[in-house]
Amino acid sequence: MTTSTLSGVVPPLLTPLTADGDLDLPSLERLVSRLLDAGVDGIFALGSSGEVAFFDDAMRARVLEAVTGLVAGQVPVIAGAIDMQTHRVIQHLRAAERFDLAGYVVTAPFYAITGPEEIDTHFRAVAAAADAPVWAYDLPVCVHTKLAPAQLLRLGQDGVIAGVKDSSGDDVSFRRLSAANRAAGSPLTLMTGHEVVVDGAYLSGADGSVPGLGNVDPAGYVRMHRAARAGDWEQVRREQDRLVALFEIVFQPVGKVGPAAGVGAFKTALRELGVFSSNVMTSPMTPIEGEAVERIRAILTETGLREGASV
Amino acid sequence: MTTSTLSGVVPPLLTPLTADGDLDLPSLERLVSRLLDAGVDGIFALGSSGEVAFFDDAMRARVLEAVTGLVAGQVPVIAGAIDMQTHRVIQHLRAAERFDLAGYVVTAPFYAITGPEEIDTHFRAVAAAADAPVWAYDLPVCVHTKLAPAQLLRLGQDGVIAGVKDSSGDDVSFRRLSAANRAAGSPLTLMTGHEVVVDGAYLSGADGSVPGLGNVDPAGYVRMHRAARAGDWEQVRREQDRLVALFEIVFQPVGKVGPAAGVGAFKTALRELGVFSSNVMTSPMTPIEGEAVERIRAILTETGLREGASV
Amino acid sequence: MTTSTLSGVVPPLLTPLTADGDLDLPSLERLVSRLLDAGVDGIFALGSSGEVAFFDDAMRARVLEAVTGLVAGQVPVIAGAIDMQTHRVIQHLRAAERFDLAGYVVTAPFYAITGPEEIDTHFRAVAAAADAPVWAYDLPVCVHTKLAPAQLLRLGQDGVIAGVKDSSGDDVSFRRLSAANRAAGSPLTLMTGHEVVVDGAYLSGADGSVPGLGNVDPAGYVRMHRAARAGDWEQVRREQDRLVALFEIVFQPVGKVGPAAGVGAFKTALRELGVFSSNVMTSPMTPIEGEAVERIRAILTETGLREGASV
Amino acid sequence: MTTSTLSGVVPPLLTPLTADGDLDLPSLERLVSRLLDAGVDGIFALGSSGEVAFFDDAMRARVLEAVTGLVAGQVPVIAGAIDMQTHRVIQHLRAAERFDLAGYVVTAPFYAITGPEEIDTHFRAVAAAADAPVWAYDLPVCVHTKLAPAQLLRLGQDGVIAGVKDSSGDDVSFRRLSAANRAAGSPLTLMTGHEVVVDGAYLSGADGSVPGLGNVDPAGYVRMHRAARAGDWEQVRREQDRLVALFEIVFQPVGKVGPAAGVGAFKTALRELGVFSSNVMTSPMTPIEGEAVERIRAILTETGLREGASV
Repeated sequence: MTTSTLSGVVPPLLTPLTADGDLDLPSLERLVSRLLDAGVDGIFALGSSGEVAFFDDAMRARVLEAVTGLVAGQVPVIAGAIDMQTHRVIQHLRAAERFDLAGYVVTAPFYAITGPEEIDTHFRAVAAAADAPVWAYDLPVCVHTKLAPAQLLRLGQDGVIAGVKDSSGDDVSFRRLSAANRAAGSPLTLMTGHEVVVDGAYLSGADGSVPGLGNVDPAGYVRMHRAARAGDWEQVRREQDRLVALFEIVFQPVGKVGPAAGVGAFKTALRELGVFSSNVMTSPMTPIEGEAVERIRAILTETGLREGASV
Repeated sequence: MTTSTLSGVVPPLLTPLTADGDLDLPSLERLVSRLLDAGVDGIFALGSSGEVAFFDDAMRARVLEAVTGLVAGQVPVIAGAIDMQTHRVIQHLRAAERFDLAGYVVTAPFYAITGPEEIDTHFRAVAAAADAPVWAYDLPVCVHTKLAPAQLLRLGQDGVIAGVKDSSGDDVSFRRLSAANRAAGSPLTLMTGHEVVVDGAYLSGADGSVPGLGNVDPAGYVRMHRAARAGDWEQVRREQDRLVALFEIVFQPVGKVGPAAGVGAFKTALRELGVFSSNVMTSPMTPIEGEAVERIRAILTETGLREGASV
Repeated sequence: MTTSTLSGVVPPLLTPLTADGDLDLPSLERLVSRLLDAGVDGIFALGSSGEVAFFDDAMRARVLEAVTGLVAGQVPVIAGAIDMQTHRVIQHLRAAERFDLAGYVVTAPFYAITGPEEIDTHFRAVAAAADAPVWAYDLPVCVHTKLAPAQLLRLGQDGVIAGVKDSSGDDVSFRRLSAANRAAGSPLTLMTGHEVVVDGAYLSGADGSVPGLGNVDPAGYVRMHRAARAGDWEQVRREQDRLVALFEIVFQPVGKVGPAAGVGAFKTALRELGVFSSNVMTSPMTPIEGEAVERIRAILTETGLREGASV
Repeated sequence: MTTSTLSGVVPPLLTPLTADGDLDLPSLERLVSRLLDAGVDGIFALGSSGEVAFFDDAMRARVLEAVTGLVAGQVPVIAGAIDMQTHRVIQHLRAAERFDLAGYVVTAPFYAITGPEEIDTHFRAVAAAADAPVWAYDLPVCVHTKLAPAQLLRLGQDGVIAGVKDSSGDDVSFRRLSAANRAAGSPLTLMTGHEVVVDGAYLSGADGSVPGLGNVDPAGYVRMHRAARAGDWEQVRREQDRLVALFEIVFQPVGKVGPAAGVGAFKTALRELGVFSSNVMTSPMTPIEGEAVERIRAILTETGLREGASV
């Protein structure tokens, strides 16, 4: 297992679906092309934005096969191996071995309550079984455990994990992790999942971002990343501010929560942009309809993504 | 699908394991015999106490095959079909069809945040795919959603669910559910999972209990249930008070949380009682060791379960 | 300081208000008479149901003066000394010394986060300054700290607190506290604040109840208490079931939360019963209006409290 | 009431205490001088870092009298008017009128649960009673309510509040508030209370910071603010990174939580720097002792604050 060098903009790929819930390959092809054309540095398949939580093993395999086929080595692809506990996570790793993957993204155990000792054992067991680097996915809103900076750093120093995808919403913790990581020689690559404060995360020491909104505006995130690398912080902020305005699409659905609202808004936007054929969500979620679609369309226009605006 | 008539004492069966994490059949046989001898009304396999969250599909099938074989129709067996979302839950139902099961126990979706609409769709889709009655499992400490009494009642009235296993820790909500259920003609069978307040749950209208501690002292719970049915509330309380003293075993482990502490204590007690060959837990959990074992042994003695005490 | 012998039914007294937010003495007199006529064992003034959180020191004094004057020693009166931290709590004790009070009800510190050490110091400092027994008020929904059974018991054994008013909603914890308290010789008197599961709390070992709903139907709680003391559990349950039906009044307001809904419903019910002149709430809360009032009135009728029904 | 123009670095002033818990005036004078010498833009007295939650009215007045006297108009002083509900908050405003204050900092109601309607009424009533601008203090860790961006903006547009002190820990919400505020013509001044991510907050649009750690290193925060205004983001980040290293002092105490750890660490640092005579905390909190003090001293040295290092 070699240390991952993946960094930069790595969108968590949406999974377009047909009306009967199957994978919509033409839409997926358009999405992948769009991300690659925009210059993303990698692709994260089967993340929360990819609706992995709703997929059985066959569907997960179908997604990985399609994505790795479409990307065809142009950028690294990493894959979520998201499940309740160690054994099932390792099964997902085994099933994914036949695909060209640059890494796996793994959460702490969930459903059953586990403590730091079990979390440590879990990541070590998963990494020992993996044929590619493992990333820790810190996502307390779903996992209901916050990964402690000290534990993450130790796992990094021991070569267990290559990096962290931080979607914790805890920017103080992220800053402390970043400082401790740098002081230790940067064993971890740090990516933020919070698409509206990526600029601040860059100042905090993030190596890149995993923005769900990057499915909708990949070029914006790529421009922001390049500006950050160039030290042009006014440009960084300008891009981020525009993306903040675009992110308002996720607050338009009424009566929906979680991915039905957020991922649903991304899918709706991509349909309105002509990338997706539909905004279908995996059951039991239903797609966004009615006035929320109008408002999403208006936001796309205001932020320059529709009607000939350069993206 | 017929309405379940299951009620009374239905322990969530522990899953004894060998040192290498496989199913320990002789121990399982002793446990099942012990429960049947004590007069339990049913057995709930693959619940949280059964470590279902840690098992892959093959292990789940192995458990169901062994349990239904050992029980051999003497009492109804219901099985947990616990997974993150609808599709996987239905896969578990399909895989379990070949066993003699009287029902399935299903939670709301977890990991991905879902709202009332998705929860409703989830239970209806699961029930439509089930070959036996579905029970809703209200377990917010793991699922992070509290099932609302009004929603549960509607699902019951619509014939979607046969009953509720309430492990919500919210006795006010349970009482309201019970009152509304009775006012509606009792479409739901109500079982409590809180082993130390079963007596109060009976007053609240519970039809029975699903006590993890019932693996350790099934006779106590059966006596309590019969006393409640006979209206002998002083006897009910006396049994419950002794079981409360016994329940202190789960607070003895130091540095362990969740099932590593609670289920671990039950397994340790059963080993000390000669029912289990070991107290092994599924990885990444480790078994209870050291002084906590001494304290558990002492509690077993104090509560009359060890050294010739009649159980 | 002598150990309190207060037990039984001790309603947390509502504070009727005039349109300009002042104390409505005639309504208060009617409420107190109604409680005393029903045979309550004590009165708890300035609890959460009494809107203490919204009152300044002058209003608190006005309430205590009026209540102790109206009760005139017929039953013990205890008073909430609710404030953010130790110093202010002690100020409230000092201000209350001139009234005939049988005890004070005190929470853990709130707003500023404090740990077990500070909570211990807090209760000891408050008790040292008190001229009457101190009761610990376990109310995590407001205080955001759960008092641990072991800590409460130790405070009881050390003579710091006379008892606990448990509004924690954690019936498992309450049962464990009750068992530990009995094993230690019952240094603590235990009262439950959860009006819809008082019957179960009695089985758990509660010495009495502090039911907000007892303002609306004091006679029902007194009958339930006497039946419990007589061991007539079917009667206990019957009363509790009726009170559960009555408690539905707190769920009728739409768009209101916390005391604006719960205490608001109690005040509205008392207005409809002719006890209060109005259902005014302390600013910034507003009274319940519209259809919710109709539904509250209907529930009062259905549960036998209106139109000539015997209460 | 004029709109506040306060922005920049406004430390929440610690309150040094004597051994018997009284105000330590010489230490306070040294602290105020140190802040003014460093070039802070304002001072926030009686905030959470100032232990306001632990003070009675007399102590609050003593602090305000001393602080306004020492500052003597050199920079604006704003004061926390922190209490459970509207009436008491207004009493604090009345008591503070005699001091030279540039504004008041007020939270949503706490202890009693209140909803958006009551929060709105609360801020409007407080502002109507205030003789200086009111700032909303968003501090869910203490108040247990998160102020919604849309509500804050509306209060700003209506002239009810002059700004927001954001200590919510929710950088996504802060970014959205900032964007909406700018789109509305910036009726609100936005200050962040999170001392380790002030740089990101500046990118997000913060007008300044209210850093507790600014008591320990005011010059660092002033340099960072000036660099941000000058667009020198590398310098901003460098200062912030050093302050992140310094902030580790709050994680050194063992067995302490909340202000006993955080404010305790600040006080201990100031004692070690010769500014404070002691690190006494208001009862029931106890001061930091033992090895934690050694570790705090070491961090002060490593970050250049001790032993002749230029601050």
